[in-house]
Amino acid sequence: MNHNSNDTQAVKLTGEDVAQHNSKDSCWVIVHGRAYDVTDFLPEHPGGSKIILKYAGKDATEEFEPIHPPDTLDKYLDKSKHMGEVDMGTVQQEVKEEDPDEHDRQDRVKRMPILEQCYNLMDFEAVARRVMKKTAWAYYSSGADDEITLRENHSAFHKIWFRPRILVDVEKVDTSTTMLGTKVDIPFYVTATALGKLGHPEGEVVLTKGAKKHNVIQMIPTLASCSFDEICDAREADQVQWLQLYVNKDRAVTKRIVEHAEKRGCKGLFITVDAPQLGRREKDMRSKFADIGSNVQSSTGDDVDRSQGAARAISSFIDPSLSWKDIPWFLSITKMPILLKGVQCVEDVLRAVEAGVHGVVLSNHGGRQLDFARSGIEVLAEVMPVLRERGWQDRIEIYIDGGVRRATDIIKAVCLGAKGVGIGRPFLYAMSAYGGPGVDRAMQLLKDEMEMNMRLIGASDVSQLNPSMLDTRGLSMHTATVPTDTLGLNVYDPLVGPKEKAKL
Amino acid sequence: MNHNSNDTQAVKLTGEDVAQHNSKDSCWVIVHGRAYDVTDFLPEHPGGSKIILKYAGKDATEEFEPIHPPDTLDKYLDKSKHMGEVDMGTVQQEVKEEDPDEHDRQDRVKRMPILEQCYNLMDFEAVARRVMKKTAWAYYSSGADDEITLRENHSAFHKIWFRPRILVDVEKVDTSTTMLGTKVDIPFYVTATALGKLGHPEGEVVLTKGAKKHNVIQMIPTLASCSFDEICDAREADQVQWLQLYVNKDRAVTKRIVEHAEKRGCKGLFITVDAPQLGRREKDMRSKFADIGSNVQSSTGDDVDRSQGAARAISSFIDPSLSWKDIPWFLSITKMPILLKGVQCVEDVLRAVEAGVHGVVLSNHGGRQLDFARSGIEVLAEVMPVLRERGWQDRIEIYIDGGVRRATDIIKAVCLGAKGVGIGRPFLYAMSAYGGPGVDRAMQLLKDEMEMNMRLIGASDVSQLNPSMLDTRGLSMHTATVPTDTLGLNVYDPLVGPKEKAKL
Amino acid sequence: MNHNSNDTQAVKLTGEDVAQHNSKDSCWVIVHGRAYDVTDFLPEHPGGSKIILKYAGKDATEEFEPIHPPDTLDKYLDKSKHMGEVDMGTVQQEVKEEDPDEHDRQDRVKRMPILEQCYNLMDFEAVARRVMKKTAWAYYSSGADDEITLRENHSAFHKIWFRPRILVDVEKVDTSTTMLGTKVDIPFYVTATALGKLGHPEGEVVLTKGAKKHNVIQMIPTLASCSFDEICDAREADQVQWLQLYVNKDRAVTKRIVEHAEKRGCKGLFITVDAPQLGRREKDMRSKFADIGSNVQSSTGDDVDRSQGAARAISSFIDPSLSWKDIPWFLSITKMPILLKGVQCVEDVLRAVEAGVHGVVLSNHGGRQLDFARSGIEVLAEVMPVLRERGWQDRIEIYIDGGVRRATDIIKAVCLGAKGVGIGRPFLYAMSAYGGPGVDRAMQLLKDEMEMNMRLIGASDVSQLNPSMLDTRGLSMHTATVPTDTLGLNVYDPLVGPKEKAKL
Amino acid sequence: MNHNSNDTQAVKLTGEDVAQHNSKDSCWVIVHGRAYDVTDFLPEHPGGSKIILKYAGKDATEEFEPIHPPDTLDKYLDKSKHMGEVDMGTVQQEVKEEDPDEHDRQDRVKRMPILEQCYNLMDFEAVARRVMKKTAWAYYSSGADDEITLRENHSAFHKIWFRPRILVDVEKVDTSTTMLGTKVDIPFYVTATALGKLGHPEGEVVLTKGAKKHNVIQMIPTLASCSFDEICDAREADQVQWLQLYVNKDRAVTKRIVEHAEKRGCKGLFITVDAPQLGRREKDMRSKFADIGSNVQSSTGDDVDRSQGAARAISSFIDPSLSWKDIPWFLSITKMPILLKGVQCVEDVLRAVEAGVHGVVLSNHGGRQLDFARSGIEVLAEVMPVLRERGWQDRIEIYIDGGVRRATDIIKAVCLGAKGVGIGRPFLYAMSAYGGPGVDRAMQLLKDEMEMNMRLIGASDVSQLNPSMLDTRGLSMHTATVPTDTLGLNVYDPLVGPKEKAKL
Repeated sequence: MNHNSNDTQAVKLTGEDVAQHNSKDSCWVIVHGRAYDVTDFLPEHPGGSKIILKYAGKDATEEFEPIHPPDTLDKYLDKSKHMGEVDMGTVQQEVKEEDPDEHDRQDRVKRMPILEQCYNLMDFEAVARRVMKKTAWAYYSSGADDEITLRENHSAFHKIWFRPRILVDVEKVDTSTTMLGTKVDIPFYVTATALGKLGHPEGEVVLTKGAKKHNVIQMIPTLASCSFDEICDAREADQVQWLQLYVNKDRAVTKRIVEHAEKRGCKGLFITVDAPQLGRREKDMRSKFADIGSNVQSSTGDDVDRSQGAARAISSFIDPSLSWKDIPWFLSITKMPILLKGVQCVEDVLRAVEAGVHGVVLSNHGGRQLDFARSGIEVLAEVMPVLRERGWQDRIEIYIDGGVRRATDIIKAVCLGAKGVGIGRPFLYAMSAYGGPGVDRAMQLLKDEMEMNMRLIGASDVSQLNPSMLDTRGLSMHTATVPTDTLGLNVYDPLVGPKEKAKL
Repeated sequence: MNHNSNDTQAVKLTGEDVAQHNSKDSCWVIVHGRAYDVTDFLPEHPGGSKIILKYAGKDATEEFEPIHPPDTLDKYLDKSKHMGEVDMGTVQQEVKEEDPDEHDRQDRVKRMPILEQCYNLMDFEAVARRVMKKTAWAYYSSGADDEITLRENHSAFHKIWFRPRILVDVEKVDTSTTMLGTKVDIPFYVTATALGKLGHPEGEVVLTKGAKKHNVIQMIPTLASCSFDEICDAREADQVQWLQLYVNKDRAVTKRIVEHAEKRGCKGLFITVDAPQLGRREKDMRSKFADIGSNVQSSTGDDVDRSQGAARAISSFIDPSLSWKDIPWFLSITKMPILLKGVQCVEDVLRAVEAGVHGVVLSNHGGRQLDFARSGIEVLAEVMPVLRERGWQDRIEIYIDGGVRRATDIIKAVCLGAKGVGIGRPFLYAMSAYGGPGVDRAMQLLKDEMEMNMRLIGASDVSQLNPSMLDTRGLSMHTATVPTDTLGLNVYDPLVGPKEKAKL
Repeated sequence: MNHNSNDTQAVKLTGEDVAQHNSKDSCWVIVHGRAYDVTDFLPEHPGGSKIILKYAGKDATEEFEPIHPPDTLDKYLDKSKHMGEVDMGTVQQEVKEEDPDEHDRQDRVKRMPILEQCYNLMDFEAVARRVMKKTAWAYYSSGADDEITLRENHSAFHKIWFRPRILVDVEKVDTSTTMLGTKVDIPFYVTATALGKLGHPEGEVVLTKGAKKHNVIQMIPTLASCSFDEICDAREADQVQWLQLYVNKDRAVTKRIVEHAEKRGCKGLFITVDAPQLGRREKDMRSKFADIGSNVQSSTGDDVDRSQGAARAISSFIDPSLSWKDIPWFLSITKMPILLKGVQCVEDVLRAVEAGVHGVVLSNHGGRQLDFARSGIEVLAEVMPVLRERGWQDRIEIYIDGGVRRATDIIKAVCLGAKGVGIGRPFLYAMSAYGGPGVDRAMQLLKDEMEMNMRLIGASDVSQLNPSMLDTRGLSMHTATVPTDTLGLNVYDPLVGPKEKAKL
Repeated sequence: MNHNSNDTQAVKLTGEDVAQHNSKDSCWVIVHGRAYDVTDFLPEHPGGSKIILKYAGKDATEEFEPIHPPDTLDKYLDKSKHMGEVDMGTVQQEVKEEDPDEHDRQDRVKRMPILEQCYNLMDFEAVARRVMKKTAWAYYSSGADDEITLRENHSAFHKIWFRPRILVDVEKVDTSTTMLGTKVDIPFYVTATALGKLGHPEGEVVLTKGAKKHNVIQMIPTLASCSFDEICDAREADQVQWLQLYVNKDRAVTKRIVEHAEKRGCKGLFITVDAPQLGRREKDMRSKFADIGSNVQSSTGDDVDRSQGAARAISSFIDPSLSWKDIPWFLSITKMPILLKGVQCVEDVLRAVEAGVHGVVLSNHGGRQLDFARSGIEVLAEVMPVLRERGWQDRIEIYIDGGVRRATDIIKAVCLGAKGVGIGRPFLYAMSAYGGPGVDRAMQLLKDEMEMNMRLIGASDVSQLNPSMLDTRGLSMHTATVPTDTLGLNVYDPLVGPKEKAKL
């Protein structure tokens, strides 16, 4: 975050100076009042060169901001390309076309329900969907392929029913537990999600503050909009954070990141293992297409390349060759407990135990990677009996994420044997709609639900939650009914209640 | 019900006298033509002080009426706070804002179907939904969280199918049975439901009369709008009532209530064990918010506190520490048979037998407490085989409630082994829409259905109903289908029948 | 059918003569140009006295016609009450109120699709629903209670899937079979359904002609609109008919009917055993209410009585005490094979074999009696393995009815072991919409489907159809999914395909 | 393709010459500028004579083109009936009535999304549905009876879920495999589908080119719009094609076709065994009716005959007597590997192995033949364990087709043991909407999905795909839920999220 590195320059650049570098042969852009020469960087840009060229010679701050941590230009662009401050008064204001969608959105923002009208985590999603920018909403909400897994993640919880116990003294209910040795108020953590600034200008640090207030752990994402250090800096004294890691092909880079995180006090390293390639999320792709559609109408071939390019670019950063043989090395470079995030069947959990890691997150990446991957909660129900049979249930900590929306979901996971659950999107939606207070209320609602529902299930303590309190017989049946009899439905008169008298 | 306690006062208060006490420092309200000083009571009010302050210095009768039994002020407010009669002619009439919703509702009331158009219990619900005040409807109809259990309660009956017997002489069909020794016409009782005056100005006594007419038992609710004694007084000579009990932290209060009920002739004590804390019902909360929304728009923080406050207040009245160790004490203070209402798994039924109680109600509180609690009928199917295996089936009486809408539902429960079923909301809806005649017709419809369906299943007597008459294989499968293939549905042309000729 | 019994009277009555008898003290009605004194009959009328009094002193032909066989008045009304011919020119024409519903219906009749646009049996239902009178449609289409069984009947076939065989020589496909010794073209018969004239002025004889044309058997209903003899008379030389029988309390009447049927050549006696009381069909009741609603608005109590009265009246005709002990008597009074229609579980099929009857129809009365009775096809799948285990499969003939709409449905039943299936409503709909040609086409469509689908399943002969050609694993699972997650659905954006360019 | 056979004729016919032959007694039609006398052919025309007579004496090119391969007239019409070239300038232009549907369609064509907006195979279907002619769409998209199997084909894949493996080195992913010895890029082939010119004027050769570009195999359909030789000619050097064969009653014809195909280089012979008679597809029939409806309004009887006639005509071409005893003969007349296309249960697969064929395609003909036939993928799950048990899994190659829309579907089939899958309709839709580039993009999308999803499931090579990577427990459950509780749904208020503020 060294925006001031060229401050010594006496003379500011003018808008006209920059505007001359408006082609792929010489491409400057303005970000936060400074000009950068990105000509050589164009072919390397993970998002493709086109999106940069759209701002060649212009101010790109608005587009740049939510997608990139503020230290990006310092980190990835040589200082020699930092061309200095720009006198922003001389930069021509782009006259934006009236966007009717945006106009409607602004209207919806004005009519937003007040925060107190949100009674559960779904409510934040309902509001966010109406008030977020379409592309931001699409990025957060989209999943892989037909989004079957995305929805199954929540739906799976609906297949688990309770067998509550009565006449248990539940005057005092203690929802707290520990995660990797850290005492937390309630068995959830804020899991890693990318690009927080799409939803809120302050990005992930809003979640840091919410996590502190409710004494839960935040997992810092590799692909945050804020820089790693900003998120660490936002932490209060004894607050605990974990690091989510996409492993870089260049292990030196990976090592540097891990060591830095440990130095900055991170208490757990969660290696993402379900994303050798980032998934195709068609809702997101469609939304982006619409966004820049007017500029690319003529060149039909371009779009294929661009999406391909993005995939390749990301593949070149995340290492698809990561394998079990790398685990010993990770164990050698850090003292942080190491957990594998994205394990999806019991065979791999057993292997993880044997490999000596400290835990796993049963997860399908929020339904954003492989469609028809099973939900974390279902895999949990497969995993725990096998672990218990071998007496291995205490050799690692098991977490799940995906689809958690209610405290009853958390209780179900803990009953089955999870130490806790990760929650991602709901907090993003709360943050996007209402900022910090939204996150605060979302967490408080979960706590209220947790306390009440532990009472109602007959447990005064998290340790009392156990598998006999659940009926999971319907959980693992992935079936669909026979396709609808459309002709038959067509001729059936549904029953209706009594008819009102005619209006006079 | 001692409204006349201050009648000796010669001089009536004027509206202006009362109007001066319109703040939290001095807060008087008028109820039924009398003024009360509730200043000191404000912080203790379970519904929060705000709702009272809204009426500070004014007539609160209309708001007070449906929520509180008439003896509330006598019981809970010291006589010194009873400020005397008010000359109602001097009280300024509040000019109510035109409420378009209410206007529409009045229109719907005018167009109500006549009673004879209701052919089943669902029909009353259809009418009630249209003609009840929104908040009253929301209170009655709401359930916990996502209302999954609320709906599962009825849906569970749909998973049980009949295996009827033919060529049985069913010329005479006897639907009568006994419950705790009382002979009743048909195996249902009117279960306890709160706040009857929300639906009808006379409240629970309307149900007392209906129960008498059809010779079924009424269970008197702790949280009735009418006072306990009013409901007892409405009873006819040999009519039987039971008492539903929320156990108070102060066992002396509880003892007093139980002894009073026994003295007044109650024949059964049903201790609610599924409500250590009253559930969150979001539909109800949303409706209340809307109701007083205009007054609280500015203070966003208030709402959280208020709902919290209500939860706490109710928790301080109902004892969340109630446990198995209390059962012997209950058995010692009354000769009434004792039943546990809200048992939800076979383990607890076995324990209830061992504890020596006389029966259990398998219930999830009408889906208003723990979402994803199983239906009573499903728990019944789990319980009875275990009891029979141990030869314990006659040691207690088993009842269920929740979701009963048809006589076939009653038959299913009795076939499985229940002595009878409790029915709550349907009678509230019948009463709310059509008053006493509605309740009468609702009960008569059940009797007609019962007689006919016993004929059709081939049983001339309740004792002939048995498990071999049912196919329950689909009952306990809590599954959901794979999430919809939205893209696929999007491109599939449903079949349609032959097309009409074009209109000329 | 002795309309001419009073023809010798020289002087005709005038409309004015009849109009004077317009009260319950003296009530005459005109039917087909003759006057009848029905005063004493009023309290006995199964449909209640009210409906007759509506026509007191007037011409009731239009209302009378579809509900009563033409010999009704001769059979049930003493000749002394036949008051003679009426000069219809002197009878005042009732000016009918303009009925907007009827106007719309007439418009739909004009726009009816031509017959060739009906490609399957559902299509006739689609047309009939639009062009039939509302009350007639309601009578035909309604079922018991929530109409769950009504729909399950067809839906059950959807749970049975094929395991077709390939490379079987199917050049010639023979769909014929025998039923009770009669050779028929295809394994279905026209089952008994009541009140054919509601759908078509000629009533059941339309079906007689269709059955002849396609060489299938017609089962004559007890409650036909045509008289039994009319339906027999409509039969051609070697055509075979069966009789469906509701057993009368007066066994002498029953005996007379059976003997008459045998004399007239009926080849099978199907005793209805699933209707000790006729079911409540709410759609039908609602439609009737609407029909005469304007006349009864004031007297709310009447309707209850009337429906009760109808139930009682019908109960007094059909004998609810009919039981297994009556079977030997039936076997003694006729040489016709005797079959029980409406058997619903394997225990009763075994008992039927032991009782010595010649067959059973596994049926739930088209879903019109007991809701949640299982479908005939499902009961068949329960019955046949047990019969085969005992070697009893050839001791009786098994039929099913209910929900058959496709030749594949017939094939499924025959594969499982049925001799054939009864089809009722579809032919009523075909007849109601298109008369005789409709029935003809409906039957031809079934034949075409049958031949084709036998080819496709790899059977050239009905005898080759066998259980290994089916997958019935999903058949007996009466389950419902977890209730919908309405909040969740509320916030999920379904996927959509590519968006069209904006309209210019 | 000998259009020039009469070119030596000096004088061209005039439109008037042809117009005189406009009845069934003398019927000439013009096709591609030449006149043909089809009088004697009328009764033999598989599509019925009516459709030809509509064009008697006129230019029939537009109607003829998509339905018939160009060599049809040469093959089936004696040269003596080729009446010579027509001076098209003298042929009267038919003034077409303005067709509002066609007008709307043209408008939709103008607004077609650009190709890059198609992100998956369903998207092409979405576009094709909007821009294809109604009759063409109906022909491609329709299925048998209620189209239950049609939809089940895709739906079945949704019941199979993944058990992906993590930490497998998937840097390089190889999606290639072999089919009947041919190396292909990805385990799918373009399966045979009829009448390609309905969708695109160039017909099946568009698919030939696409298959070449992506190195996959094309199966040439018997009922192509292009002639067999045209499709062979379109092949590039080392490209591989297979032949799909409907077996003709005249085995000499069949032999000639097979020998010709082998000579032209076909590498596999797929004998269709699921179509002894072509299925009734009602959507298709309805669409055709509408198309020519105005001409046949008066003659209601005609339509029945016509459809019957078509069925008979096709039956006389395809041999319904084809049986297992014919297999040795096929093996004797060709060296091409022989596969049976349309096998539907394990018993027939075993018999196929014993009969010595080289493979089978588990298929239900795209849901166009027998409704309630199971999906190929489900039959595959039934077949493979039995084959493996016998050690026969390598004695034949197993393919499936039907419902494949995603690379995950392909992966599922290969995991279960298929060598590959056939894909038909999706490429027709891509071709119909976007021509060659559409087919290209569709195939490329599958390749992209395949590579990505193999990475995500943890397989770098097709040979690593195995059954342990799947959860198929829900696959074979053909069940439907209990019919909807329509009355209940009617009275339930679905939950809704927070309400927006009122619009000002």
